[in-house]
Amino acid sequence: MLRLYDNKESRNGYKAVLLLSHLGTPYERVEMDIFKGASRTPAYLAKNPAGKIPALELDDGTVLGESGAILWYLAEGSPYLPDEKLARAQVLRWICFEQNAHETSVAESRFILMHPELSAGRTGDILAEKQKRGNAALKSMDDHLKKNDFFAAGRYTIADMALYGYTSVADQGGFELSAYPAVQAWLKRVEAQPGYVAATQG
Amino acid sequence: MLRLYDNKESRNGYKAVLLLSHLGTPYERVEMDIFKGASRTPAYLAKNPAGKIPALELDDGTVLGESGAILWYLAEGSPYLPDEKLARAQVLRWICFEQNAHETSVAESRFILMHPELSAGRTGDILAEKQKRGNAALKSMDDHLKKNDFFAAGRYTIADMALYGYTSVADQGGFELSAYPAVQAWLKRVEAQPGYVAATQG
Repeated sequence: MLRLYDNKESRNGYKAVLLLSHLGTPYERVEMDIFKGASRTPAYLAKNPAGKIPALELDDGTVLGESGAILWYLAEGSPYLPDEKLARAQVLRWICFEQNAHETSVAESRFILMHPELSAGRTGDILAEKQKRGNAALKSMDDHLKKNDFFAAGRYTIADMALYGYTSVADQGGFELSAYPAVQAWLKRVEAQPGYVAATQG
Repeated sequence: MLRLYDNKESRNGYKAVLLLSHLGTPYERVEMDIFKGASRTPAYLAKNPAGKIPALELDDGTVLGESGAILWYLAEGSPYLPDEKLARAQVLRWICFEQNAHETSVAESRFILMHPELSAGRTGDILAEKQKRGNAALKSMDDHLKKNDFFAAGRYTIADMALYGYTSVADQGGFELSAYPAVQAWLKRVEAQPGYVAATQG
């Protein structure tokens, strides 16, 4: 059975949880107390040298890291990843945007505000820059969603799941989503999809 | 003919230039003076609302952004992107790592040091954090390359091209590559590939 190494606060892990729920794929979820070093034990590093969660362990013991790669692997052959070459590239375009512009600003602002005790020296200029960039990322999303119901391929795909992960808790990072009404409407469309499941913890 | 909107300083654009050279695919390269607003004109924003380079314009006028997505689109069906599902996911794992952990630290440190006039307020805590994270990313790469000649699929793929882009100019970001000998050896392996082309500007 597939095994997902995860942490309840991580929305990177939740992206995979959401897709697995849509797919109805059985898996074992392993809660990792990353704040107590669970992802840095010799046993875990032997599985995943990156020392991070989420990671997906396949039946043969292979471990795949990075939320975007896990989504891609699991969605192959499903309606959540189109077959056509250009549509697939547009899905990936938004997954890259999420990893580059969005996760590093929206998610990291949330981490700093949720864990100031672990963020010494980061609550000044660093947080301010992340909030500025996070708002720019949310603006890009809002502009796109004014003209499109979903991010790519004209339908709900893993690009939406990747972006839903942290956008849905952007308020915890100090972002005011009412400034992005098209994003708010899209969040509701995601939540109306068959098999949608909320995260264990906000 | 394919058209690549690029800027000579951008290593995100160079990733696509490198792949196109390996493939021997003809294309038109459009140099964009991004420092004088070339990527923010109404004409360009109509093509690419993200207002960024690189962007690849296809024969039908479709524009694809994000270096990782451009690499994926162009490499489909070539030796630089494997066919097998898990191997493809491992390629994507490193492309995501590049976009999330590496480009935002190694590339952005380089930008700050090359353009202090455009980086007011970023040369203190922000640069220090990016250099710390950049060294962590280079360490992850070095650890992987101690045991592997390339990043995924046991051969040279677009994962290597994605990471070569900014790693090869990491010194311009204040990184000392001699601390990462496996990375240095891999840079030479990339440069020995058939069709390799150096960037126009360092």
